[in-house]
Amino acid sequence: MTQLEKAKFGEVSPAMEQVAKQEGIKPKELLNIIAEGKAVIFKSELHNNVIPLGIGKHLRVKVNANIGSSPKKADINYELEKLKVCEEFKADTVMDLSTGGDIDAIRRAIIAKSTMPVGTVPIYQAVIEKKTIEDLSESEMLKGIIKHIQDGVDFITVHSGFTRDQIKPLRSRVMGVVSRGGSFLLKWMLHNNKENPLYENFDKIMFHAKKYDVTLSLGDGLRPGCLKDATDKAQMAELKTLGKLAKTAYDNGVQSIIEGPGHVPLDQIKINIDLQKEYCHGAPFYVLGPLVTDIAPGYDHITSAIGGALAATCGADYLCYVTPAEHLGLPTLEDVKQGIITSRIAAHAADIAKGVKNARVWDDEMSEARANLDWKKMYELAIDPKLAKKVRDECENADDEVCSMCGEFCSVKINKELRKGD
Amino acid sequence: MTQLEKAKFGEVSPAMEQVAKQEGIKPKELLNIIAEGKAVIFKSELHNNVIPLGIGKHLRVKVNANIGSSPKKADINYELEKLKVCEEFKADTVMDLSTGGDIDAIRRAIIAKSTMPVGTVPIYQAVIEKKTIEDLSESEMLKGIIKHIQDGVDFITVHSGFTRDQIKPLRSRVMGVVSRGGSFLLKWMLHNNKENPLYENFDKIMFHAKKYDVTLSLGDGLRPGCLKDATDKAQMAELKTLGKLAKTAYDNGVQSIIEGPGHVPLDQIKINIDLQKEYCHGAPFYVLGPLVTDIAPGYDHITSAIGGALAATCGADYLCYVTPAEHLGLPTLEDVKQGIITSRIAAHAADIAKGVKNARVWDDEMSEARANLDWKKMYELAIDPKLAKKVRDECENADDEVCSMCGEFCSVKINKELRKGD
Repeated sequence: MTQLEKAKFGEVSPAMEQVAKQEGIKPKELLNIIAEGKAVIFKSELHNNVIPLGIGKHLRVKVNANIGSSPKKADINYELEKLKVCEEFKADTVMDLSTGGDIDAIRRAIIAKSTMPVGTVPIYQAVIEKKTIEDLSESEMLKGIIKHIQDGVDFITVHSGFTRDQIKPLRSRVMGVVSRGGSFLLKWMLHNNKENPLYENFDKIMFHAKKYDVTLSLGDGLRPGCLKDATDKAQMAELKTLGKLAKTAYDNGVQSIIEGPGHVPLDQIKINIDLQKEYCHGAPFYVLGPLVTDIAPGYDHITSAIGGALAATCGADYLCYVTPAEHLGLPTLEDVKQGIITSRIAAHAADIAKGVKNARVWDDEMSEARANLDWKKMYELAIDPKLAKKVRDECENADDEVCSMCGEFCSVKINKELRKGD
Repeated sequence: MTQLEKAKFGEVSPAMEQVAKQEGIKPKELLNIIAEGKAVIFKSELHNNVIPLGIGKHLRVKVNANIGSSPKKADINYELEKLKVCEEFKADTVMDLSTGGDIDAIRRAIIAKSTMPVGTVPIYQAVIEKKTIEDLSESEMLKGIIKHIQDGVDFITVHSGFTRDQIKPLRSRVMGVVSRGGSFLLKWMLHNNKENPLYENFDKIMFHAKKYDVTLSLGDGLRPGCLKDATDKAQMAELKTLGKLAKTAYDNGVQSIIEGPGHVPLDQIKINIDLQKEYCHGAPFYVLGPLVTDIAPGYDHITSAIGGALAATCGADYLCYVTPAEHLGLPTLEDVKQGIITSRIAAHAADIAKGVKNARVWDDEMSEARANLDWKKMYELAIDPKLAKKVRDECENADDEVCSMCGEFCSVKINKELRKGD
């Protein structure tokens, strides 16, 4: 039985116990949310060392880091180094989006090493190995999916919501389809003059996912790639389809989440989340960004942190990181680190804003340490302790007695003195 | 006559013409906003080379960069280098917060070189030169202010809203007073058992500011220094006082803006802006952040970009940058750059969200260039062209024919091909 089926039957699973403990809520409360389809637990029955992770309503907002090889940089050790960075800086999940080298070996190594849930987009590998998009058969697509499931991935992206009737409204877009999976399917549908095979074969996909309780991440092939394309007809049509598929998955006891944008102006973020929750019956929402402006290549971890913080405050449950390399190249190890920390800041800001249990304790402890000018404690509590210490150590003004910004006339020092005088 | 007085008389000044042109609105429209006290023009009559800058309702959100020496790093040339960074990365204003070396010489050099409006906090220098806070006389404070005004600063921060009756509610705070000016005044009031001299002498301050049309930036000495202290009694009491002072300034034809927080949870940002607009009769709002979490020293340019983007979307008009060095040390040249760019991203995201005229043109041009894989144009349009080019140049995957993230199976390339086939 999947976690969803157990929840529907009112049976608290060990994974639910574990997740509830992590989140500081009661197992029964978590069970109810899962039973409503408003939270999922990532944990494939084939991923032995994985620590189950909950994503959804009332739970801490989670952060995913994308890693993976490319044809020009296909080194299994480099990908395992990235995985270490993900662990060190506390991503909640990783997605292996490898497109180069021995893709099977890389994925299997990542799954073997990772205690974080691992996700993939099986269609990438299927297309790469076929060397063409157009001639990939439906059964080859399905085989690709099955292979990833059998390797022990905890969740897979399937772009099942992009159907043929959504092709026409795309013509008015500036950026067209920017999702890689979406663009593959667009090309396939146009060439073969047939419906999206991931839509047509959704039953089969569910069947295989259900076997090992792999969560379906229903991909947004039509996410907007620029502000001008945001919240348009194509995006909304796909979202409605995703909502129907989520309902189908739910009815069949298969866990699913919904993927979302993308590039979205700040004033359209709330409505995007509201519509997702409405169309998709409250299914967990996994957003890439949203990036709130198009003009900052090199800084898109920041443009997406702005959008991500607001999206998560409005109800998004899971943020896919965006790194400084977005729109420009593949992320380096440093980019992976920056992407994770920036997304975690966004997620945490949202946890505080929506009152996730105990979220603010961390901040309050930091403030206490700050008020006491307790630098050791401040470093310990910092989201990046090494960096915090480094920046201060390099500051010529640093002195334990003062907050190093103001020197002698430090406001914190003055306050401390005044408190003593009370 | 000040710009405010001219606006009240219905006289379009050359500065209004200039600002209206920059903003792409009609001079008469700008005049009306200024006449209502909802926008100001920064331009001291003694700052010869300054380009007048408008701040307020319907205008592009502006970004300030703080620079200035410290006792341990007091090098006039280093400050002028920082000024160059501010120009290169397009800060709208600079504040010289020098506290070390020949403070007069540094300020005068900055004013002489800067075409951006320059602001200061005169009380810093007054305290430093007196070497004590407690014994500084009221007339010495005033003299300090007059000196800065006569040197040609375009705006000055005066913490006139922090009155004695607000001391008691501070005791329940974690961080107490984190504004340097605020902590000076707290110490002064407690020691001298008298009311805040910047409050008591507000008429005199107005008198001197008005002479050369220096804008008063009404400082928030009680801005919260951590999430727990946000939107508390002390902060709100000061805000109300600032509103009254803004009204007094307005009635006297003196331009003023209001300074605001600080550390504020994301869900309290909107109410903070709404209350400021209500208490302060729509006077322009200048915020420091707000920082939406306390746990990210080393990344507070990002925590503040999240808060700043939302604050500006809700109506804040002017963002004070926060650099990665915040809470840790004084900013380096690189920190200044990061602070400016990050704040500009936040400001621009808000301009788009609130529909500031022509704000989205930049993004739409970038998206057009992206859709065409026109890298030259993308670099030109990027907020940091050199960095964008560098990141891509370093990417082993780079190839003009594809967006470098996906290599051969580039979604943008596929879209481009499909467009051709139309």
